[in-house]
Amino acid sequence: MNFSSKLLENAVAEFAKLPGVGQKTALRLVLHLLNQDKEEVERFGSAVTKLRNEILYCSVCNNISDHVVCEICSSNKRDQATICIVEDTRDVMAIENTNQFTGVYHVLGGLISPMDGVGPADLDIDSLVARVASGGTKEVIFALSATMEGDTTIFYLNKRLKDFNISISTIARGIAFGGELEYVDEITLGRSIATRVPYENSLSR
Amino acid sequence: MNFSSKLLENAVAEFAKLPGVGQKTALRLVLHLLNQDKEEVERFGSAVTKLRNEILYCSVCNNISDHVVCEICSSNKRDQATICIVEDTRDVMAIENTNQFTGVYHVLGGLISPMDGVGPADLDIDSLVARVASGGTKEVIFALSATMEGDTTIFYLNKRLKDFNISISTIARGIAFGGELEYVDEITLGRSIATRVPYENSLSR
Repeated sequence: MNFSSKLLENAVAEFAKLPGVGQKTALRLVLHLLNQDKEEVERFGSAVTKLRNEILYCSVCNNISDHVVCEICSSNKRDQATICIVEDTRDVMAIENTNQFTGVYHVLGGLISPMDGVGPADLDIDSLVARVASGGTKEVIFALSATMEGDTTIFYLNKRLKDFNISISTIARGIAFGGELEYVDEITLGRSIATRVPYENSLSR
Repeated sequence: MNFSSKLLENAVAEFAKLPGVGQKTALRLVLHLLNQDKEEVERFGSAVTKLRNEILYCSVCNNISDHVVCEICSSNKRDQATICIVEDTRDVMAIENTNQFTGVYHVLGGLISPMDGVGPADLDIDSLVARVASGGTKEVIFALSATMEGDTTIFYLNKRLKDFNISISTIARGIAFGGELEYVDEITLGRSIATRVPYENSLSR
């Protein structure tokens, strides 16, 4: 693209580095910001840099937080003996939105993925093992994506945690509520038949 | 969404104000930035605020520029007597990419749109009229979108400019190169028959 201004070109280049944002979208976003008040743009810029410079990660669960220990980990209304293991903060938000979980979390910060060069040492796994080893934990729930990477991570974590006196579970896999049977893939459908649950249990939501 | 951090929530809210960016996309972009180096994020933030604070608009054509007079307006290789009127800087970039135009531009900064409350006074029209009135202009070319707003703007500008001794033209409308006839809308097809050009003229590109 032929930019009429170096400043414009720089700003577009920075936006185009964001995931899913190409040159044309970047230009559209930058021109939108150019049409805003200076204070508005200042607020945008400072919100981004402030976030990066001042953000904390909870020393217990590793979730993004404004405090050294996050609100969930420091709450006495949460069951501190049940730890739900998730990939990142988006999963915490998704599970919190269900209002079905009253325990605490542990955020790994990713999944084991040899293809992407992500090994166990790159994730917050040692802190999880230390947390379980320190006692007080009764159950660990794996809430990871049903992908190769998710399964690999569960396999590895199970090996590290199985000698502790805790129960280990994974969230249920099966057909989604509202899902039509004929559109479900064979693996999910096959597994959901093999792991069928008594009708009475399926009613308690 | 339940954010675990106020800083995170602020940054997501700022991103979600951008056009075409919803809460989920905003969160994805913000988490991407969180995983970058501090210097990288600093560069992103400062590129945006620097652009807004230091950008100039060419005093002749109103295009975004790093100088008081932009490179095109100050170039002696460009035909200063032919002014192409466009909506915004993206149109300048699109026309420059064709390498077919050697004249200069005038950027209106928008189109007349009573529905959106944009009147002639909100656009850089007076500076265009003054520019033509000051002499030296031989031709004005309207390169505006073929929409209601574009047509309204052309109608208004034509009224303001028609008493000057200049020729006024609009870019050709018709079927696009590579366009299949059966998929062209009726208005375009009908007009392209009515405004047909001699075969010899159609060959000179």
